[in-house]
Amino acid sequence: MAKTMWGGRFNRDTDKLMEKFNASIAFDKRLFRQDIKGSMAHAKMLAECKIISKKDLALIIKGLSAILKDIEKGKFIFKTELEDIHMNIESELIRRAGDAGKKLHTARSRNDQIAADVHLYLKEECVSLSKPLISLAQTLLDLSNKNKDIIIPAMTHLQHAQPVYFSHHLLAYFSMFERDLQRLKHSFEAADISPLGAGALAGTTFPIDRKMTADLLGFKNIYSNSLDAVSDRDYIVDFLSFCSILIMHLSRFCEELILWQSSEFSFIEIDDAYSTGSSMMPQKKNPDAAELIRGKSGRIFGHLIAILTVMKGLPLAYNKDMQEDKEGLFDAIDNIKMCLSVFDGMIKTLKINESGIKKSFENDFSNATDMADYLVKKGLPFRFAHKICGQAVLLAIKKRTNLIGLDLDDLRKLSPLFEKDIFEKISIKTCVNGRDSYGATSAKQVLFQINKAMENLKNIKNFWIKYYPKSK
Amino acid sequence: MAKTMWGGRFNRDTDKLMEKFNASIAFDKRLFRQDIKGSMAHAKMLAECKIISKKDLALIIKGLSAILKDIEKGKFIFKTELEDIHMNIESELIRRAGDAGKKLHTARSRNDQIAADVHLYLKEECVSLSKPLISLAQTLLDLSNKNKDIIIPAMTHLQHAQPVYFSHHLLAYFSMFERDLQRLKHSFEAADISPLGAGALAGTTFPIDRKMTADLLGFKNIYSNSLDAVSDRDYIVDFLSFCSILIMHLSRFCEELILWQSSEFSFIEIDDAYSTGSSMMPQKKNPDAAELIRGKSGRIFGHLIAILTVMKGLPLAYNKDMQEDKEGLFDAIDNIKMCLSVFDGMIKTLKINESGIKKSFENDFSNATDMADYLVKKGLPFRFAHKICGQAVLLAIKKRTNLIGLDLDDLRKLSPLFEKDIFEKISIKTCVNGRDSYGATSAKQVLFQINKAMENLKNIKNFWIKYYPKSK
Amino acid sequence: MAKTMWGGRFNRDTDKLMEKFNASIAFDKRLFRQDIKGSMAHAKMLAECKIISKKDLALIIKGLSAILKDIEKGKFIFKTELEDIHMNIESELIRRAGDAGKKLHTARSRNDQIAADVHLYLKEECVSLSKPLISLAQTLLDLSNKNKDIIIPAMTHLQHAQPVYFSHHLLAYFSMFERDLQRLKHSFEAADISPLGAGALAGTTFPIDRKMTADLLGFKNIYSNSLDAVSDRDYIVDFLSFCSILIMHLSRFCEELILWQSSEFSFIEIDDAYSTGSSMMPQKKNPDAAELIRGKSGRIFGHLIAILTVMKGLPLAYNKDMQEDKEGLFDAIDNIKMCLSVFDGMIKTLKINESGIKKSFENDFSNATDMADYLVKKGLPFRFAHKICGQAVLLAIKKRTNLIGLDLDDLRKLSPLFEKDIFEKISIKTCVNGRDSYGATSAKQVLFQINKAMENLKNIKNFWIKYYPKSK
Amino acid sequence: MAKTMWGGRFNRDTDKLMEKFNASIAFDKRLFRQDIKGSMAHAKMLAECKIISKKDLALIIKGLSAILKDIEKGKFIFKTELEDIHMNIESELIRRAGDAGKKLHTARSRNDQIAADVHLYLKEECVSLSKPLISLAQTLLDLSNKNKDIIIPAMTHLQHAQPVYFSHHLLAYFSMFERDLQRLKHSFEAADISPLGAGALAGTTFPIDRKMTADLLGFKNIYSNSLDAVSDRDYIVDFLSFCSILIMHLSRFCEELILWQSSEFSFIEIDDAYSTGSSMMPQKKNPDAAELIRGKSGRIFGHLIAILTVMKGLPLAYNKDMQEDKEGLFDAIDNIKMCLSVFDGMIKTLKINESGIKKSFENDFSNATDMADYLVKKGLPFRFAHKICGQAVLLAIKKRTNLIGLDLDDLRKLSPLFEKDIFEKISIKTCVNGRDSYGATSAKQVLFQINKAMENLKNIKNFWIKYYPKSK
Repeated sequence: MAKTMWGGRFNRDTDKLMEKFNASIAFDKRLFRQDIKGSMAHAKMLAECKIISKKDLALIIKGLSAILKDIEKGKFIFKTELEDIHMNIESELIRRAGDAGKKLHTARSRNDQIAADVHLYLKEECVSLSKPLISLAQTLLDLSNKNKDIIIPAMTHLQHAQPVYFSHHLLAYFSMFERDLQRLKHSFEAADISPLGAGALAGTTFPIDRKMTADLLGFKNIYSNSLDAVSDRDYIVDFLSFCSILIMHLSRFCEELILWQSSEFSFIEIDDAYSTGSSMMPQKKNPDAAELIRGKSGRIFGHLIAILTVMKGLPLAYNKDMQEDKEGLFDAIDNIKMCLSVFDGMIKTLKINESGIKKSFENDFSNATDMADYLVKKGLPFRFAHKICGQAVLLAIKKRTNLIGLDLDDLRKLSPLFEKDIFEKISIKTCVNGRDSYGATSAKQVLFQINKAMENLKNIKNFWIKYYPKSK
Repeated sequence: MAKTMWGGRFNRDTDKLMEKFNASIAFDKRLFRQDIKGSMAHAKMLAECKIISKKDLALIIKGLSAILKDIEKGKFIFKTELEDIHMNIESELIRRAGDAGKKLHTARSRNDQIAADVHLYLKEECVSLSKPLISLAQTLLDLSNKNKDIIIPAMTHLQHAQPVYFSHHLLAYFSMFERDLQRLKHSFEAADISPLGAGALAGTTFPIDRKMTADLLGFKNIYSNSLDAVSDRDYIVDFLSFCSILIMHLSRFCEELILWQSSEFSFIEIDDAYSTGSSMMPQKKNPDAAELIRGKSGRIFGHLIAILTVMKGLPLAYNKDMQEDKEGLFDAIDNIKMCLSVFDGMIKTLKINESGIKKSFENDFSNATDMADYLVKKGLPFRFAHKICGQAVLLAIKKRTNLIGLDLDDLRKLSPLFEKDIFEKISIKTCVNGRDSYGATSAKQVLFQINKAMENLKNIKNFWIKYYPKSK
Repeated sequence: MAKTMWGGRFNRDTDKLMEKFNASIAFDKRLFRQDIKGSMAHAKMLAECKIISKKDLALIIKGLSAILKDIEKGKFIFKTELEDIHMNIESELIRRAGDAGKKLHTARSRNDQIAADVHLYLKEECVSLSKPLISLAQTLLDLSNKNKDIIIPAMTHLQHAQPVYFSHHLLAYFSMFERDLQRLKHSFEAADISPLGAGALAGTTFPIDRKMTADLLGFKNIYSNSLDAVSDRDYIVDFLSFCSILIMHLSRFCEELILWQSSEFSFIEIDDAYSTGSSMMPQKKNPDAAELIRGKSGRIFGHLIAILTVMKGLPLAYNKDMQEDKEGLFDAIDNIKMCLSVFDGMIKTLKINESGIKKSFENDFSNATDMADYLVKKGLPFRFAHKICGQAVLLAIKKRTNLIGLDLDDLRKLSPLFEKDIFEKISIKTCVNGRDSYGATSAKQVLFQINKAMENLKNIKNFWIKYYPKSK
Repeated sequence: MAKTMWGGRFNRDTDKLMEKFNASIAFDKRLFRQDIKGSMAHAKMLAECKIISKKDLALIIKGLSAILKDIEKGKFIFKTELEDIHMNIESELIRRAGDAGKKLHTARSRNDQIAADVHLYLKEECVSLSKPLISLAQTLLDLSNKNKDIIIPAMTHLQHAQPVYFSHHLLAYFSMFERDLQRLKHSFEAADISPLGAGALAGTTFPIDRKMTADLLGFKNIYSNSLDAVSDRDYIVDFLSFCSILIMHLSRFCEELILWQSSEFSFIEIDDAYSTGSSMMPQKKNPDAAELIRGKSGRIFGHLIAILTVMKGLPLAYNKDMQEDKEGLFDAIDNIKMCLSVFDGMIKTLKINESGIKKSFENDFSNATDMADYLVKKGLPFRFAHKICGQAVLLAIKKRTNLIGLDLDDLRKLSPLFEKDIFEKISIKTCVNGRDSYGATSAKQVLFQINKAMENLKNIKNFWIKYYPKSK
C-alpha cells in the first residue's frame, strides 16, 4: 500500500514479510509530534514562498492539527503497510484535506524530513534529560552538606589508601556529572541544526527559504551541505557517547553502593524502597536498583557500537541501513532517564551507617603516608621515609594493631626522628584536615568546593531553563 | 505487591518508579510457555520424590494448564508489580489452587527457574532458526544449479581478479552458511543443559531428582555445579557470537547485491517485491531489503558487546545485572529470523542480468594470470612471467583494448614464447575451466561441490529434524 | 627491583612473570618528555613553596635535563623491573642526584603523575592531529575549486538519485571534517586540566601550589576534586569517540573511492603511488590505501569499547585496570595520523575520469524529480506528479532509453501538461543549477559554500596555530 | 621496491608513507616459521606434481632452510619496502636460489599463502594455550582438595545467600574453564582447514594436489571453495569469541579476589609475589595482578568487535581491510597467555584466611532458607514459611543477633512449628551438608564433583597431548 505513495514505476507489490521488515512505523511513531510540527513549518514556508496557496496551507494546518489530536488521544491507527510515520500522517492528511494534502511533500523528501524529526526529538530529549541529571547533581551536594563530618577510608585497588571526608568522595561524582552536563550541552548543540530543505540529497528546484523553517522550529543553525544534511548521524553518535560515559559513571557509583551495602562493609543501608527480596531466601535484601543500573552499561555501550557499525563504510548519501539509527537511540534515552531518576531516589533515601564506617578504621593503615610526611618534614628524603613507614606497617601487622597502636620506642628503633607528637599527627582527623591543598579533602577545601559546585550548578540550570516548556 | 511474595523482612514498600524499573515482566512474559512447562516438570518431580502430595500435584497441573490457555488466548493480565513472569504465574496459581500453589516453589528459586526458562527457550529458538537457515542454504544451491553457465568477474579489492562461475561465487556463501549451521548446532548443544535444582545458588535441602526434571524437559545434560548453574550466561554469548558471524556473512552478501544492482554494475535485478521507492524521486527502485539486513549487523554486534559488558567483573553468583541478558537476546532472535526469511525471498526472486555481466568483461584483464601461467608452462619462471603480463596489460590499456585485443606481434615483442594459441588459452571460458584443482572454479569442480553440498545439507537437516515439532 | 622503591612492607620478591605482566614501561616510555617536564614543574613548585631547597631543585633539574638528553639520544636503558616511566626516571635521577632525587616524589604520587603525563601528551597530540586534519580539509576545498564543472550522479541506496556537482559531493565530506575539528577542539579542552597535586587520591599535607604547576605546564584548568583527578578517564573516552567518528567518515569516503575506482564505475583513478599490485595477478592495481583506512575503523571502534569496558563498574579511585588506558590510545593516535596523511596524499593525486562519469549518465533517471517538479509548477499536486513520472521511467526502461530519449507524444499521453520545454528543463545541467536553495548543489550555492568553508577553516587554523611549536 | 615483485603494470613508485602504511612486515614477521613451512610444503607438492623440477625443489628447500635458521638467529633483516613476510622471504630466496626461487610462487597467491600461515599459526597457538588453561583448571582442583573443610558465605547480589564449601565455589570456576577448553577445541577445529591451492581466489590452472599440501602441513580438512578459502575470517572471530568469554570468566574471579583481599572482607591474602605497593603510600599492598587481568577484558572485547567491524559489509573475496585481522589476534594471544599464567601463579600461592571468613558469619542470615525448609518439612506451604522466616530475620536484626541467637520462644511466637531441634538444623555445617542434591554443596557432592572433574580434565589433556611438540 505504501506503493500507492511512491510506486509509479513498480509492477509488483511488496512481499508481505518484506513490508513488515522494511516498515519503521512500529518505532518511529514516537516521532509523531516532531513530524507534524515539522510539516506545519514546512507548509507555512511553502505558502510564504508562494509555492502553495494560503488556502492549501490552511487546509494542511487544519488537517495536521486534527491528526495530532487524534494521535494524542490514541485514536489514530498506524498502518505497517504505510511504512513510516511520514507516510502514515501524509496519507491520512490526503484523505482529510484532498489535493492540498498531496502538495505538502513539495520540495521535501523523507530523507530531510526524518532527519529533521530526529534532530527536533533529540533536542527535546536533551532538554528533558538535563532535569534528572541536574537533580542528581543537586542531591549529591545536599548529601555532602548533610554529612560533612563523616570520614571514610578512600581506596585505591579496593585497599584503604587515605582517609577522606565522605562529602569529598561524593564531590568526585559531582565532578563527573558536571562533565556529563557539559557533554549533554555539546550534544544538544550538535543536534541544533536544521536539515530541512535538503530534499532527497541535493536541495530542491523550488524557491524555498530554509532559514524560515529553521526559525519556526527553533533551530539555531542550518546544514551547509544538502548531502551531509541527509546522511549525517554524528549527532546520534555524540549523544550515545555522552550516554556511555554517563552510564559508566553510574556503574562506578553503583559498584560502590553494592560494596558498601555488603555485610562485610556495612557503610550504608539502601532504603527498602530501592531493594528487593528473594523468592527463596527469606533474609535477602538486595541492592537491585544499583545492580540493574550497573548492568545497563551493557546495552548503552552496545547501542554506541551499533550505530558506529551501521555507519561504517556507507557511501553517500542516505542508505536504508540508517533506519537502524533510531531504536538504539530511543532505548538509550528511556533507560538513561529511568536510571537517573531511580538512582536519584536511591541516593536521596540512603542511610549512612557511621558505626560500620568507624569499624573499618580499626585495622587501617591509611595514615601511613602522613607518617612518612612527618619524617619528610623533619628532613628525611621522601624515599627513605616511605621505606621506614612500610616497615612500621609490617611491625603493626605482626603485633595485630595499627600505627597508632605502636609504641613510640618501636617507632624510634625505625627512625630516631619520631617523637611523641607523631600519634596526634597521624590521627584520622589530622590526616584528613591536613590535606588542605586545592581540591584536597580538608574540611575547608571540601566546603569551598561544595559552594563552588552550587554556583556552577546554578549556571548550568540557567542554560537549560530557557528551553524548558512553560506549562510543565 | 511483589513484596507479598518475598517481603517478610521489609518495612517499606517499593518505590513506584523502582518497581517499574526493576520489573522484567514487559519482556520476560515471552517465556510463559517455558516457565509453565518448567513448573509442571518441577511439580511432577516434587510429587515423585514425595516432597508434595499427588493431590497437590494435580491441583498445580490443573491450575497451570488453565493459566497457559488463558495466556495463549490473551486473557491473562500481566502485572508490573508482580515483577516477572514467575511471580505473575505463581501468584495467579495460588489464587486458583490455594495452598497447593504455595508449595510449588519448594526446592526452587527464581535463579534456577529463570535460567531453566531461558535454556528451554533458546533451545527451541535454535531449532526454529535452523529452518530458515537451511532454507537459505538450499536456495543458494538451487540458484547455483539453475545458473551453471554464467561467468562473472570475481573480484579482490573490488577489482576484476579472475573469471569464475556465478555458481562458484554462490557456493562461497554456501560454505559460510554451512559453518553457521555448525555454530548453531554448537550453540544448541551449549544450551542443552538443565540448571533446575540449583536453587538460589547452593542446591536444596529437599531430596529432589534433578535428572528427572531434566528428562521431563528434554535436557541432555545437567549442570555439575549449582553456583555455575545460576550464574552462567556463556550459552547466550555463544549464541550472540553465532548471530554476529551470521549477520556479518549476510552483510557481505548484501553489499554485493547492492553493488550488482547499481546501474554501473547492472549484474542483477532485485525483484519489486523486495525493493522500495522514494517519496520524492519517481525513478527510484532501491534495494532496501539488502541495505536493511546489512545495517542489522550494528544491533547484533551491539547485543554481543552488551552481554559481555554486563558479565564483566561480576562476582558469583546471580546479580541483578544479569536481568539485562534477555532483551538483546530476544531482539537478536527476532531480527535474525526476519533477515534470513527476507533474504531468502530476495534471492529466490533474483533476476540475473547476463548482458550486464557480459558488458563488464569488455575492459577486463581478469585473464592476465592465465597469460602468465601460459608462459610458465613454457618454462619461464613465474616472477618473469608476471612482469611480462603486467606490461601486456599496460600496453592494452594504452591501446584501449583488452588482452585478447592485442596483436600477436605486440605480445611477441614482450616475449617470444607467445604463440598463436595464446588467444584461445586466455579466453574467459578456457580460464574458468582451466582452474580445475579441488575447490576451484571449473565446471567440473563446481558441479562436484554442488553435489557434495547437497549431501551435507541433507545430513544437517537430519540432525535438526528430530527436534521439529510434529504438528507444524 | 621496583620493590626497592615501594617495598618497605613486603617480605617477598615479585614473581618474574608478574613483574613483566605488571610493568608498563614497554609502552609508557613514550611519555618520557611529558614525565620529565611534569617532574621539573613539580620540583620548581616544591622549591618555590619551600618544601625542598633551591639547591635540591638545581640538582633535580640538572639531573632530569641530562636524563632527557640521554633518552632522546637513545642512550637510556629502560628496565622492566622498574615498572614504569616514572620509576625508571626517578631511580636514575636518584643515582645521579642522590638525596635531592629522593625528595622529588614529595607531595606526589604516581597516580597524579601518570594522569598529568597523559593529559600533557594528549593535549600535544590533539595539537599535532589538527595539522593533517586541517590539511585534508584544505585539500578537499582545493579539489572542489579545481573541478567546479564536473557533475556526478549523487546516490541514495547506491542508486542514481539526482545530479550534483562533484564539488558539492566533496563539500559534504568537508562538513564532516569540520565537525571533526570541532570535536578535536572539545577533546583538547577536555584534556586541558591539571591533576597534579591530587597525590594518591586525597591531596597532600604539604603546602603545595597547584596553580603554579598548572601554569608552568600550560594547563588552563585544575581538577576540583582529588579523587576525580586520579581516576578520571573521560577525556580519553572523549578522544577515542572523536577518533571513531573521524575514521567512520574516512571509511565512508574510502568506500566511495573504492567503488569509483572499480572498472564498472571508472569515475576516478587512484595514483600508482597509493595503489598496489598482486603477487599472482599481473593486471591488478588495487586501491589498498583506501581499503586499509576503511579497515582501520575496526581497531578504533575496538579501542573505544575497550576503555569503556575497562572503566565499567570500577570503584573509586585508581585501580590497576586503568593502566589499560594507554595502549589503545597510543595506537589510535598513530593510526589516525597515518590514515589522515595517506588519505590526504591519495586525494591530492586523484585523477577524475570525466568520460567514465559521463558514461554513467547514459542510462540515468536522476532527472525524474525535476520532471515531477515541472508538473507541480504547472499546478499538479506533487503526489500525482510523482506517480506520472514513475510511469515515464517505466516507459523509458521499456524503450531502452532515458527520460530525454522519450517522445513528447509519449509524455503527453501520461500528462497533457508536458510541453516542448520539458527536455530543456530536465537536462542534467538545468537540474543541477536549478537546485539553488541554501546548501543545495547549484553552481552559485557551491561557490558560496566553498568560500564560506575557506573562511571557517581559516578561523579553525587560528585556534590551533597558537599551540604549534615555534621551531617545527 | 615491492613493486619489483608485482609492479609490471605500474608507472610510478609507491609513496614512502604509503609504503609504510601498507606494509605488514612489522607484525606479520611473527609468522616466519609458518610461512617457510608452508612454502616448503607447497614446493614439495609442485615437484611431486611435476610443476617444478626436483632440482628446483632442492634449491628451494635448501634456501628456505637457511633463511629459517638466519631468522631464528636474528640475522635476517626485514625490509618495510618488501611489504610482508612473504615478499621478504621470497625475495631473499630468489637472491640465494636464483630462478628456482622465482618458481616458488607458481600456482600460489599471497591470498592463500597468508591464510595458510594464519591457520597454521592459530592451530599452534590453540595447542599452546591449552597448557596454561589445563594447568589453571588443575590448580583449582588441587586447591579444592586441599581446603575441603572451609565454608564461605555464597553470595547473590553481593549479599550473603547460603553457606557453601569454598571448594564448591572453586568448582564453579572449574566448570567455566571446562567450557572454555571445549570452546578452545572448537576453535582449533575451526582453524584446522587448509586454504592452500585457492590461489588468488579461483584456484589455479596448474595440476596441483591440495590434499598433499594439507597432509604435509597437518591440516585435517580442505576448503571446498576457493573464494571462501581466501576471504574467510570466521575462525579468527571464533577464537576471539573464545578469548572474550575466557577473560570474562577471569574478570569475575579477579573481582572476587579483589573483594576478598579488601580489609573489610579479609577472606584471603594474595602473595607478595603477585602484589605491588604504592610510590606514595607505604602501607599499600595492592592486588595488581587481579586488577590488571580484570582490566584486560577491555582490549579482548575490543579485538572481537574490531574484527567484526572490519568484516562487516566487505564484498568477496580478499580486500586489504582484512590485513587488520592480525594485530588484534596476536595481542589477544599474548595477553591471554600471560593472564592465564599469572593467574595460575596467584591462585597457587593464595592464602586462605579462615578467621576472616569465620568472622563474616557472625552477622549472617544465610541459614534463613534452611529455617524455611524446616517449616515446610513440617507441613507449612513454602510461601508461608518464607514469610515467617523473613520476620524472624527482622527480629534478629532488631535484637542485634543472628537466627541462632534468637530464643525458641521468640520463634514459636512466629510459628508453633518451631521446636528445639531448629538450632541444630540451621547450624552452618548442617546447612551446607543438607544441600545434597546433584551439583549441590554438600561435602559428598563436592567430593564427587572433584573426582568427576579430574576424570574430565584427564580426557581433555588426552585430546591435546597428541599435538604437543615432542621435544619441548
